[in-house]
Amino acid sequence: MAPQNVDLIVEAEWVVPVEPHGVVLDQHAVVVDHGRIVDILPSTEVADRYAAASHVRRPGHALLPGLVNSHCHSAMSLLRGLADDLPLMQWLQDHIWPAEARFVGADLVRDGSRLAAAELLRGGVTCVNEMYFFPEVAAAVYAEVGMRAGIGLTVIEFPTAWASNADEYFDRCLAAYDEIKSQPLLRAAWAPHAPYTVSDASFERIRMYSDQLDIPVHVHVHETAFEVEDAFHKHGERPLSRLRRLGLLNRNLIAVHMTQLNDSEIAFCADAGITVAHCPESNLKLASGFAPIEKLRRAGINIAIGTDGCASNNDLDMFGEMRTAALLAKAVANDAAAFDAATALRAATLGGATALGLESEFGSLVIGKSADLCLLRLDDFDCLPVYNAISQIVYSSNRRDVRDVWVAGVRKLEDGHLVDFDTGQLAGLARAWGERIRAGLGR
Amino acid sequence: MAPQNVDLIVEAEWVVPVEPHGVVLDQHAVVVDHGRIVDILPSTEVADRYAAASHVRRPGHALLPGLVNSHCHSAMSLLRGLADDLPLMQWLQDHIWPAEARFVGADLVRDGSRLAAAELLRGGVTCVNEMYFFPEVAAAVYAEVGMRAGIGLTVIEFPTAWASNADEYFDRCLAAYDEIKSQPLLRAAWAPHAPYTVSDASFERIRMYSDQLDIPVHVHVHETAFEVEDAFHKHGERPLSRLRRLGLLNRNLIAVHMTQLNDSEIAFCADAGITVAHCPESNLKLASGFAPIEKLRRAGINIAIGTDGCASNNDLDMFGEMRTAALLAKAVANDAAAFDAATALRAATLGGATALGLESEFGSLVIGKSADLCLLRLDDFDCLPVYNAISQIVYSSNRRDVRDVWVAGVRKLEDGHLVDFDTGQLAGLARAWGERIRAGLGR
Repeated sequence: MAPQNVDLIVEAEWVVPVEPHGVVLDQHAVVVDHGRIVDILPSTEVADRYAAASHVRRPGHALLPGLVNSHCHSAMSLLRGLADDLPLMQWLQDHIWPAEARFVGADLVRDGSRLAAAELLRGGVTCVNEMYFFPEVAAAVYAEVGMRAGIGLTVIEFPTAWASNADEYFDRCLAAYDEIKSQPLLRAAWAPHAPYTVSDASFERIRMYSDQLDIPVHVHVHETAFEVEDAFHKHGERPLSRLRRLGLLNRNLIAVHMTQLNDSEIAFCADAGITVAHCPESNLKLASGFAPIEKLRRAGINIAIGTDGCASNNDLDMFGEMRTAALLAKAVANDAAAFDAATALRAATLGGATALGLESEFGSLVIGKSADLCLLRLDDFDCLPVYNAISQIVYSSNRRDVRDVWVAGVRKLEDGHLVDFDTGQLAGLARAWGERIRAGLGR
Repeated sequence: MAPQNVDLIVEAEWVVPVEPHGVVLDQHAVVVDHGRIVDILPSTEVADRYAAASHVRRPGHALLPGLVNSHCHSAMSLLRGLADDLPLMQWLQDHIWPAEARFVGADLVRDGSRLAAAELLRGGVTCVNEMYFFPEVAAAVYAEVGMRAGIGLTVIEFPTAWASNADEYFDRCLAAYDEIKSQPLLRAAWAPHAPYTVSDASFERIRMYSDQLDIPVHVHVHETAFEVEDAFHKHGERPLSRLRRLGLLNRNLIAVHMTQLNDSEIAFCADAGITVAHCPESNLKLASGFAPIEKLRRAGINIAIGTDGCASNNDLDMFGEMRTAALLAKAVANDAAAFDAATALRAATLGGATALGLESEFGSLVIGKSADLCLLRLDDFDCLPVYNAISQIVYSSNRRDVRDVWVAGVRKLEDGHLVDFDTGQLAGLARAWGERIRAGLGR
């Protein structure tokens, strides 16, 4: 029987499908047609069964699902390292918010999001869950780049360059929603900034719209002890209890940070089926605290991983974030078996797809799912020997080891080179913004 | 006046000398002759004053002192990822010690140390403080490679392939010492494994010899709560108190890990002038605990940073370790201003030189010191913009961004390529050992 013609075959020494959990398929091939995975089989059998327009063979490489960055402020790439080693409120109020008030506009969001998309794709990330102002601009960038993104419909109770009051935020969000829903790789999500910056009335409107549209609600919550204590002091209610009272605790909720949790909160979050987007490096850098991620996992809560924005990380490196998540969880749980390598990789892929309600579409290498693929070299001398490919990916690899990336079967990174970007031009863009922002802040 | 002839001039957009603390010199040049720094001056002035056999100009790069990895088991590179996600004692007793009993010999130490030296140099590390068996073999490798190393004279109270009893360990250590002291880039240090594996009698001999020879004593101590509680339960004494009673708490002591410390221990360690070698990723991965590194720093204790061995990290990436140290210290101290970027960089350079008693020789860019240099690119789009070079080095850079390295003025890495190694041959060596070890363990 003649081999079946397909668009793409990728062969790797190790294929890590994420589903089934912890499995490594040695010397396997993933077969892709019309943007979807149509087969996964041993390399020895692939030539008899399939003939591909593009056939990539990578001995010494691991093939895994593209990573999903579940919490990011893309445009803040232009504020990378602007203010470091400061507590959250001082960092926000004295540095980030003033800089944003002065510089945030459609042009900063366009350029910052382009930089972020390039950094993410080169680092093996095929989907980002985004939250910032001018979401329609970020949406246009991600659509043009051909990368998956959750686009946050941002609501905050103070005026910005994007909107001046709650009604205007909602009007702009609903207009952006209409643009976003027409883009196959984009997913709209409501993005109320945080309980301390959003009113009950706005949360109620968000709850109504998220129910109507059945889209996620992406919110910073219980990021710091101060946030929780201040809310309790002022309103007699912890923020999570307030969100629960307002009907926001359900499968659509993506709760970001969650460093301050008691056992009853963990229990009702588990019952509600929310996702926790864990941002360990941001939580450490801002001294926000330690999310009890292994406890949350054991309670059955879906865990996703995010880098947060470049101003609090200071990169969009999901390999570093995944490693930090796996390392930190062990010391926090006082259990070296906690949040093992396979669990961290799952959180950084399928956990993020689940957060967006798209786990049937991507996040693992399963026949029928979108071909969102990351090829990682494990054959450099400082990643060898390989006793366990998943362990190597999480604990020894580096985002610079990513060689090839596909989104829905379309090549975005080829042997380490971005297909759709001129990296020199991107560097010039970042430098020019740096000069402008530094000068504007009188530095 | 004619320009002075020198061996090397390195110009960079940012020169970070580490001393003075936190300083960044824009557009400066470091002038090197006969392996030493002879001048540091603005790039605009260098051509009039010096003519160099080798003149390296690097716009968009930062020049910093070579990093110092203050705690490593080089040969364990060959056990990278052999056993992960396990608690310390199970990891040691069920996996690492059996594998070592079977495979550790001069050949494993030679090949593993060569791999480690290459990984370290490519990652910007110019000095490593080493602790393993067959130190004379590691010493020969580091001498041949031309890299700085502290070589541990290892003592442990159980038989290994290297020695069968305490007397034999001491005989072999003293023989190794004679070879090491003849090598200009090497520094011998006593390396009793840990309080729970070394007797009072051996510690007393080590104390006597370290006083006679005035060399460091490099020991794992207070790594886990179990270690401290078990010692107290069995002997009524915490390990640090025991080392203090045995006279080992002094300027020569390099205390590794130190995750379990009370305030009185911090106070007497500060009075004694010891160094703490902080290994944050190993402490997280083995769930050993959190070293109170900011408290130690505030107490005036010299802090150095180490990766530990590849079996518990799983790499020798000092950029990653420095970032983890800076990030983790903030959450542990509940202070986002704790252990800032400049402090982390100091610990990863001068702190390590001080640990070895060689702070007058290297660890910062100061006229008269050895030219141990690391050139790091900061001009890739995903490290831009640069608002603060030190912040970028610590929070955004990656070991793969290291472009050039010199040890005592000798080029070891040239535009990302190791001068003295064939990386393909190293990869083959690592793979071959991996096969042999996997087969030997019946995997």
